[in-house]
Amino acid sequence: MKSLVLERKDELSLRDVPEIDREEAALGPRDVRIKLHTVGICGSDVHYYTHGKIGQFEVKAPMILGHEASGTVIETGGEVQHLKVGDRVCMEPGIPDPNSKATRLGMYNVDPAVRFWATPPVHGILRPTCVHPADFTFLLPDNVSFAEAAMVEPLAVGVHAATKARVRPGDIAVVLGAGPIGLVTALSALAAGCARVYVTDLAEKKLEIAASLSRAIVPVHAGKENLAEKVYAETEGWGADIVFEATGSPKAAAGVFEALAPGGCVVMIGGQPDPIQYDAGAAMVREARVENIFRYAHVFPRCVAMLASGAIDVKPLITRTFDFDESVRAFEIAASAPPADVKMQIELPQ
Amino acid sequence: MKSLVLERKDELSLRDVPEIDREEAALGPRDVRIKLHTVGICGSDVHYYTHGKIGQFEVKAPMILGHEASGTVIETGGEVQHLKVGDRVCMEPGIPDPNSKATRLGMYNVDPAVRFWATPPVHGILRPTCVHPADFTFLLPDNVSFAEAAMVEPLAVGVHAATKARVRPGDIAVVLGAGPIGLVTALSALAAGCARVYVTDLAEKKLEIAASLSRAIVPVHAGKENLAEKVYAETEGWGADIVFEATGSPKAAAGVFEALAPGGCVVMIGGQPDPIQYDAGAAMVREARVENIFRYAHVFPRCVAMLASGAIDVKPLITRTFDFDESVRAFEIAASAPPADVKMQIELPQ
Amino acid sequence: MKSLVLERKDELSLRDVPEIDREEAALGPRDVRIKLHTVGICGSDVHYYTHGKIGQFEVKAPMILGHEASGTVIETGGEVQHLKVGDRVCMEPGIPDPNSKATRLGMYNVDPAVRFWATPPVHGILRPTCVHPADFTFLLPDNVSFAEAAMVEPLAVGVHAATKARVRPGDIAVVLGAGPIGLVTALSALAAGCARVYVTDLAEKKLEIAASLSRAIVPVHAGKENLAEKVYAETEGWGADIVFEATGSPKAAAGVFEALAPGGCVVMIGGQPDPIQYDAGAAMVREARVENIFRYAHVFPRCVAMLASGAIDVKPLITRTFDFDESVRAFEIAASAPPADVKMQIELPQ
Amino acid sequence: MKSLVLERKDELSLRDVPEIDREEAALGPRDVRIKLHTVGICGSDVHYYTHGKIGQFEVKAPMILGHEASGTVIETGGEVQHLKVGDRVCMEPGIPDPNSKATRLGMYNVDPAVRFWATPPVHGILRPTCVHPADFTFLLPDNVSFAEAAMVEPLAVGVHAATKARVRPGDIAVVLGAGPIGLVTALSALAAGCARVYVTDLAEKKLEIAASLSRAIVPVHAGKENLAEKVYAETEGWGADIVFEATGSPKAAAGVFEALAPGGCVVMIGGQPDPIQYDAGAAMVREARVENIFRYAHVFPRCVAMLASGAIDVKPLITRTFDFDESVRAFEIAASAPPADVKMQIELPQ
Repeated sequence: MKSLVLERKDELSLRDVPEIDREEAALGPRDVRIKLHTVGICGSDVHYYTHGKIGQFEVKAPMILGHEASGTVIETGGEVQHLKVGDRVCMEPGIPDPNSKATRLGMYNVDPAVRFWATPPVHGILRPTCVHPADFTFLLPDNVSFAEAAMVEPLAVGVHAATKARVRPGDIAVVLGAGPIGLVTALSALAAGCARVYVTDLAEKKLEIAASLSRAIVPVHAGKENLAEKVYAETEGWGADIVFEATGSPKAAAGVFEALAPGGCVVMIGGQPDPIQYDAGAAMVREARVENIFRYAHVFPRCVAMLASGAIDVKPLITRTFDFDESVRAFEIAASAPPADVKMQIELPQ
Repeated sequence: MKSLVLERKDELSLRDVPEIDREEAALGPRDVRIKLHTVGICGSDVHYYTHGKIGQFEVKAPMILGHEASGTVIETGGEVQHLKVGDRVCMEPGIPDPNSKATRLGMYNVDPAVRFWATPPVHGILRPTCVHPADFTFLLPDNVSFAEAAMVEPLAVGVHAATKARVRPGDIAVVLGAGPIGLVTALSALAAGCARVYVTDLAEKKLEIAASLSRAIVPVHAGKENLAEKVYAETEGWGADIVFEATGSPKAAAGVFEALAPGGCVVMIGGQPDPIQYDAGAAMVREARVENIFRYAHVFPRCVAMLASGAIDVKPLITRTFDFDESVRAFEIAASAPPADVKMQIELPQ
Repeated sequence: MKSLVLERKDELSLRDVPEIDREEAALGPRDVRIKLHTVGICGSDVHYYTHGKIGQFEVKAPMILGHEASGTVIETGGEVQHLKVGDRVCMEPGIPDPNSKATRLGMYNVDPAVRFWATPPVHGILRPTCVHPADFTFLLPDNVSFAEAAMVEPLAVGVHAATKARVRPGDIAVVLGAGPIGLVTALSALAAGCARVYVTDLAEKKLEIAASLSRAIVPVHAGKENLAEKVYAETEGWGADIVFEATGSPKAAAGVFEALAPGGCVVMIGGQPDPIQYDAGAAMVREARVENIFRYAHVFPRCVAMLASGAIDVKPLITRTFDFDESVRAFEIAASAPPADVKMQIELPQ
Repeated sequence: MKSLVLERKDELSLRDVPEIDREEAALGPRDVRIKLHTVGICGSDVHYYTHGKIGQFEVKAPMILGHEASGTVIETGGEVQHLKVGDRVCMEPGIPDPNSKATRLGMYNVDPAVRFWATPPVHGILRPTCVHPADFTFLLPDNVSFAEAAMVEPLAVGVHAATKARVRPGDIAVVLGAGPIGLVTALSALAAGCARVYVTDLAEKKLEIAASLSRAIVPVHAGKENLAEKVYAETEGWGADIVFEATGSPKAAAGVFEALAPGGCVVMIGGQPDPIQYDAGAAMVREARVENIFRYAHVFPRCVAMLASGAIDVKPLITRTFDFDESVRAFEIAASAPPADVKMQIELPQ
């Protein structure tokens, strides 16, 4: 019953974590116990591995990694109604305080009390089983695989971003950045009604992958092409209705208003550790609306439904799969960030 | 240079209409002259033919029919910038007063001064050429055919309905009615982000066509199945996020809240000549929002962009095409409403 | 330790209710115990008294009446942080399931599991003390009296209605009905930014009271004046931006769109036991938005803040106050509905 | 027939401007001719006087100043319906292209073709008469004075800001800056439903004026008090629902998220000539929405209605009035920016 443990910066091991077993012995009446099946490797997992911290969150004690997960229900609490043993599920990794003001207002993602998997000091789920609130565990239809289901967590970021943007059918969008979050955002923007999505990056390989996802995606090399000129030329001088910032780069953030149409919306997704600059005048003359995004809320079942209906296809983003035994090596490869890889996943023994 | 003229109720003729030639001799500086290519037959055209009036609008003098149109620019006014001779285009049939309060507020469709093709006493465009404001004439990309372009007008109703509904990605929707407007609404709802759309009708053939459009469309026979029970059973008891009423039937309108989720939205599309009834208590306990739709505004270029990107495919809805010479017969067939036909179109000689 | 008990239709008594004492002996960790001070008499209390039921809710066993209340905290549970013994408070009468889907989405008022004071079989609070969740108990500033605080419950309906209407500063509104809910709605609409509110009723006395509340309120006698004509004449033919229906009368509901401006909003507040009719065409040509309201959510602290700031003054609505000893007589008077009375309140012994 | 002409930076004169007479000789069918009565001095007028330019707009030829104006209709064009000779009016100083895309979408303020009074090379209205489109000329009720009417232009900025913020009744707001725009924003925020508005500044005198406007305004000295601490202490740790930035100071703009509640809104009003910095992380963890404001649209008649109803009282902001003869001196005083003055106005001879 081993887990993948980040012992400290740069040191991973596959080993037993006794306190996990103790903690999870007791199943609450509204909880389910889940046998993990597939877990995706997120950039934040890799960052904890290579840097030991993200912002204020520092790895001070050994921590199990992983928060993008799917699995099978193996036990249910007494009050659980919508799930039963044997159900295939995916899980939302953040659990808010149900009684906080933010939660009651419908914004549980901004509740400061949220406990989030693999964010110190909370353990992640690269381990055999976990206990989780049934309210944050979502049933999978037969036609959604465990691998796709483990993509729901990153996809949720894109879907939440598209929801907050309030995409209207036929909008023209820009996504800055063709990393995993940029790509799920582009797919979400299209699923939400965009007629065309310009995706920018500096890596040719990433732009190729982006372009392969849909003929409505237009790749733009940020180092060789002028995005704003291109967008204005192709929109009769009007600009893009929505710009999603998914790079986390201060330079990209500084230019988010350049290609934006009057009355348009900018969605800030990429985290920025330091204060960033922008052209306030460019924002004003457009009366730009800016939505700042923090994770997601209420979108997991929506993502599952869209995977099931075919509205979104994440399979092309899953570029490599490892056995749990190889998970240390998987992280070593992920840490080298090969540009041809979008999402690596780890399968646990069943 | 003949036009298709509704002389009076039940009487159509193909003949010259001299006053049209005179009216259109002068091209304003912001106008374009268009050679018509394809014109769709709308239910309203047929209704004027078979009944002589719709509500307060009565055919008191011979009127050219047709308002769903595409064509080619053959002359441009002096101030027109975004169009040139030879451009393939589609046209919005309603022209508002640019200085009215409703227009200035961005709601030109509710401007009472709108002049709308083939709404008495305004002539339609089943004729060789027309003069139209360039601002309401939209360029077609190469991959959008004249036939698809002539579908933009009915499609605009569905896209406007989905826009007003403020569809969020992953919503579950119901469309009451599988006629042409119901089908474009279902396609629009899917394009706008719905994960699943239940479409109801009483005609098996129409439900078959609906089901063939997408695997995300679930056909429901309104006479044999209980829609609300089905929706609740398949949404863990929650209901549909959006219900589009596209039948114009008082009985259907009376039940719009039955399958609706708490906080859900009902969009009323189908015209209702008489007062209709509904269950106010059912609307209240859900805190339902109801959006009433009148034609569309600002969506033509969005529809064109979605046809070009593949977000919406209207080709399966075009079930029969006639030469202009056969247009009287085309209307006779349309008046008999064969259930296997969704949209009939007429092609003008080029 | 007597309570005001509705024994059955038409029969009230002041007596001990032993099971209440037992039920409330145990204070949960997130609860407070409150000594009641002032309780308002609501139309629903009176209706249970005179009819024994409202819709599906029937009085089948003796039930304590009252749900508009203020009081003083006399004990706090171990986890309560924002309240302490001695705090003056008002209380929200409906308690939702914190884990329901509706609550998590921020719409706890449409959670079917809500337990609401004085709605059978739940007891109300015309009694000496009660136990209540601290999360639904709100601190009063010094300048808000117990009497004003007991008005927060009906006021919340008006504020919720104005919130859902999304009033913009300078809107022109209509409120149909000058009963207690109509009046708090008019005050809420003004506080929310309306520049002028037309209030209609059939009772002269009620219109006088309405007119006395603000010079921005225009009384309109629904039997003697034509509301729509008046509104159009005074808005350059545009109409009212918002119409609030607060009568519960099918006839008033049938005409809600008559005076409405293009793009305007109708808010349905008044309960309607039977299906009601409306002119769908009038709703369509205006592209009317209709918001259906069910009680309120998240507005109690907002109401308290507006009473404290002077944004809303409810004191003129409190027209008569009774001692608890006289509460049976108070209900007899309320049941006769004297038109000069807006809100009667009962003060409990301290 | 003299006008107040800015000949060049630092040089004003009262003299005839012959081309103005010629230009305005011809009255269009939708125009009115207005005899000016009262004109307010705006910070931008003073800035052109003292600096000769604002951003890209440079005074390269003599220009008449003034754009906050009221007056009397003395002639009407043939198609004008809602105004007649003798009507007292105020005027919106920016005239958009009625056929631009931005105007048609309802956002005429972001139409780049807007012609705006006293923005080079367009003349202002510190002159005896002007010709103006009737659609941008608004009738005054009897109880709104010319002086109040000349305040509608700056007030419109505040009302537009409050409209874009989508204030909900009971919101808590912060306004950064107690200059004229800060004060009209505070008044607008209160009129729009805010229960309490914190107003910050560095000048004691300005804070005194702010505090005198309403007991719901809380003055905060930005140099001596910690705004965020104060707001959190007085909102149970939640923060302000809305923060309006009305200083144009980069330092103030850098801190707009500090006192903001989760899910709150920041409205950027103050112009910023250079790129500004902000804490993106603070914006994200709150999921802040940011609205950038450019002048106003559609709010003049709303402002007039609110002045008439008493919802907003701007009279305390008019601190000094000059005769037109003294207008050069008035500008000299305004250029010295006495802190006790909010708005200076000039009255033209009648």
